Amino acid sequence: MTNGSILIGSGEATSDKSFVAFDPSKNEALESHYAEADATHVDKACALAKSASEVFSETSPEDRAQFLETCAKEIEAIGDILIETAMQETGLPRPRLEGERGRTCGQLRLFAQEVRQGYWLEATIDPAMPDRQPLPRPDLRRRNVAIGPVAVFGASNFPLAFSVAGGDTASAFAAGCPVVVKGHPAHPGTGELVARAIQKAVKQCALAEGVFSYLPGTSNDLGAALVSDPRIAAVGFTGSRAGGLALSRIAQQRHEPIPVYAEMSAVNPVVILPGALKGNAAGLAKGFATSLTMGAGQFCTNPGVVIAIAGAELDEFVDTAVGALGEIPAPVMLTSGINKAYCDGVQRLEAKDGIALAGRGTPAEGNACQSALFRTDAESFLKDDDLAAEVFGSSSVVVSCADESEMARVLEAMEGQLTVTIHMVEDDHDLAGKLVPILQEKAGRVLANGWPTGVEVCHAMVHGGPYPATTDSRTTSVGTLAMKRFLRPVCYQDLPDALLPDALKSDNPLSIPRRVDGTWG
Amino acid sequence: MTNGSILIGSGEATSDKSFVAFDPSKNEALESHYAEADATHVDKACALAKSASEVFSETSPEDRAQFLETCAKEIEAIGDILIETAMQETGLPRPRLEGERGRTCGQLRLFAQEVRQGYWLEATIDPAMPDRQPLPRPDLRRRNVAIGPVAVFGASNFPLAFSVAGGDTASAFAAGCPVVVKGHPAHPGTGELVARAIQKAVKQCALAEGVFSYLPGTSNDLGAALVSDPRIAAVGFTGSRAGGLALSRIAQQRHEPIPVYAEMSAVNPVVILPGALKGNAAGLAKGFATSLTMGAGQFCTNPGVVIAIAGAELDEFVDTAVGALGEIPAPVMLTSGINKAYCDGVQRLEAKDGIALAGRGTPAEGNACQSALFRTDAESFLKDDDLAAEVFGSSSVVVSCADESEMARVLEAMEGQLTVTIHMVEDDHDLAGKLVPILQEKAGRVLANGWPTGVEVCHAMVHGGPYPATTDSRTTSVGTLAMKRFLRPVCYQDLPDALLPDALKSDNPLSIPRRVDGTWG
Repeated sequence: MTNGSILIGSGEATSDKSFVAFDPSKNEALESHYAEADATHVDKACALAKSASEVFSETSPEDRAQFLETCAKEIEAIGDILIETAMQETGLPRPRLEGERGRTCGQLRLFAQEVRQGYWLEATIDPAMPDRQPLPRPDLRRRNVAIGPVAVFGASNFPLAFSVAGGDTASAFAAGCPVVVKGHPAHPGTGELVARAIQKAVKQCALAEGVFSYLPGTSNDLGAALVSDPRIAAVGFTGSRAGGLALSRIAQQRHEPIPVYAEMSAVNPVVILPGALKGNAAGLAKGFATSLTMGAGQFCTNPGVVIAIAGAELDEFVDTAVGALGEIPAPVMLTSGINKAYCDGVQRLEAKDGIALAGRGTPAEGNACQSALFRTDAESFLKDDDLAAEVFGSSSVVVSCADESEMARVLEAMEGQLTVTIHMVEDDHDLAGKLVPILQEKAGRVLANGWPTGVEVCHAMVHGGPYPATTDSRTTSVGTLAMKRFLRPVCYQDLPDALLPDALKSDNPLSIPRRVDGTWG
Repeated sequence: MTNGSILIGSGEATSDKSFVAFDPSKNEALESHYAEADATHVDKACALAKSASEVFSETSPEDRAQFLETCAKEIEAIGDILIETAMQETGLPRPRLEGERGRTCGQLRLFAQEVRQGYWLEATIDPAMPDRQPLPRPDLRRRNVAIGPVAVFGASNFPLAFSVAGGDTASAFAAGCPVVVKGHPAHPGTGELVARAIQKAVKQCALAEGVFSYLPGTSNDLGAALVSDPRIAAVGFTGSRAGGLALSRIAQQRHEPIPVYAEMSAVNPVVILPGALKGNAAGLAKGFATSLTMGAGQFCTNPGVVIAIAGAELDEFVDTAVGALGEIPAPVMLTSGINKAYCDGVQRLEAKDGIALAGRGTPAEGNACQSALFRTDAESFLKDDDLAAEVFGSSSVVVSCADESEMARVLEAMEGQLTVTIHMVEDDHDLAGKLVPILQEKAGRVLANGWPTGVEVCHAMVHGGPYPATTDSRTTSVGTLAMKRFLRPVCYQDLPDALLPDALKSDNPLSIPRRVDGTWG
């Protein structure tokens, strides 16, 4: 079902260079070889994408929805080999990958529904006023159109939901944009299986072949060539801060700069208010330990910082959390590189002044992740930005504050985040009311009495946030709003009805909701 | 009514340095001196803006709408001195400035109405599903919030509608963002009058004084300091490509990069299809000459390129246009610098190969603009990008194409534009149908059978377009959609009702339209 090819449009391509994947559980190379795509492949894929762009963008909502649903169907049709391949390449357990496959296909189907509903077109009509004084008003109609071919960079930590057919690809397709995926080298077999499923869906739906291409590869040059290509109109990326910023710089230096939607890093502070901590320190600690160690902490929304007021309850929270961490098995991390970076990060924190190790979790071998919990005080935390830096994996820092105002100062000093969580009971509402305005300035999602891991794919979701959590706080990479990243508005003035796009024709042939003279109907 | 002060919050400030304005009609300096703002003033204004940001962003839609309306009322209350001052500083005639004042106040009132309607909040609720399998869904609610303090750079060519209280300021206020205006040095008296009107409105509405500050000045350093200030969250700019790109670079190099919405330049191609040209060459030529010379051609939407198929009708169009230009008085330009740049631009085109002067308009003295019409053929036009470069003022280039396919090639080669216009009759619809997809890829607004000058302020307007017309094709700087530039989404998960913002509380106290479980109601 895979042969290690590069997939360009409906065809396959090979390359002089190849690479292999690793099994992180066994810490050994896998047998299959995968072709390493280069600038020549980028050129061909982008030329095809551009040639498909106009026709694909004007496919009807129904046709596009069916394409998204066909992608989901074809991914499901891959069968268990997809799960087995992903398990081998990522070390993630079967239930997690089965769940992720469900989410990936559910996400494609949600976008299909969203495309059909038609709100995303923002069809807006200001009818002509020929008799208006002193000047008549022309007929003005606006809709959203696809921005053009999108480059998608698969993430390592969600080999399905944020990779080849993940949220970026699904939302770009939904918007009517061809996609060129730069496959993540950590799961090339998984990537190729999914890419072939999309290739089939393109063919089944009789779409132009340039709608999708897949370029596996290990080099930064490949990514740079893709973002530099003048036919690429936008970039979706999930990964490290260094990677996201590098792509942003390349995009800015193009003759025509383009938007890069990079979802980069966050420590997702969890604030525990006094009332919540009192009486439930142990319960919260157990919930926290579960959230911290889920997926070996390899989530963008992993709770890397806990903020609370010092005292016996906080001590109990820390002690219980350390105890719980010791009872949770140490899961294998995605790659040896990620594991090494995690170990280095924990070591760096251990060597720092003003911070102390509270405890480590279950000892780990090979590429497994031994969780780590640190304690510091607000003063030390505020003095040293490194203590608030993300350590990708199950590492977290508990910050003890002297009082409420110090807690607020710590929050105000935080950089942009994907999420901020606040634990509270009724008695905490006054304090929470003061903190929520700070929290919403720092993050794309504010949660109460839960844990940040687990991101619902729905209409109200914002998986985004102020820099440096992402490069564009005005957007989300999860949920139906993610489509907006790949759309731009166009206004048509006095265009004859026959030449207007269906979304704006007078008799509304798509039967979509439209805003006419200021009112949505 | 003016004393040349810098206005910071509710106060006035002075400076060691000052500058004077010029009367472009008389080409002489005016008497009044205006304080030159510097980095110290930027720091104070931004600190105040930041301190006002949270409270202003949470004012109710009704309060914010009343503030916008009060701004309009206070600008009208300035009286005729505003028109007289602007006439003296810009050389623009009274009716134009009276119209522009009407548009400026109308725009503030339209945003007031938009804020009240509440669509801009995009309030979206996905209710909890506690019994969902395998995992319950939490309660998720999303709304838009203000992005933070906005820096606005006034434009020279619209001393009211794109300056101190222009579209950028109105849309930022509407979104709930404090504004720091960098006043344009070409109309400092006009700027101060309007700034004082806004200062009064802030006071009357009992808003935090940091909601508005006004920094007049002539130096690039002032603008750079403003865009570099860490408290500024976004920038609105209308002006030259060099200016817009310089501000974008500064914004990208900040520790925290921010969006710059720069509306920079365009030549707004006008395509005349064969049927439209046949029989109406002279009528179109007269309409074109009027559009080209309106406001001395100092519009972002000035028709700087005309594309048609060669032949006797096109010769008639050019001859009639040259004749019409000779009958239209030569209006004074905004500044001697703009006039010099215009004269240099026309000279550069005259010296080029492959392009010929078809004729000049009414001879001009001083800073007046003698219009210029050039002719070239498609081949020459495609070979030399300089022929498609904007000459700010009443200069335009007619491009003769051999046939329809050459016409399409010329259009495909154009860079991003604010507008593209197409003249057609019924017989042209087939050809127009083939061209519209190219046109909408090139521009934010596609017009039929009209002229691009004149931008309606309404819901459907897009005054934007692909780079280099603007730095962000996903946005508009005119019309209610302009608010979106200054908003970002925030999601609230399981937040108790008492702590939710009014827009998302369960009983909908703002009575705004909301999307609940996927459906708008």
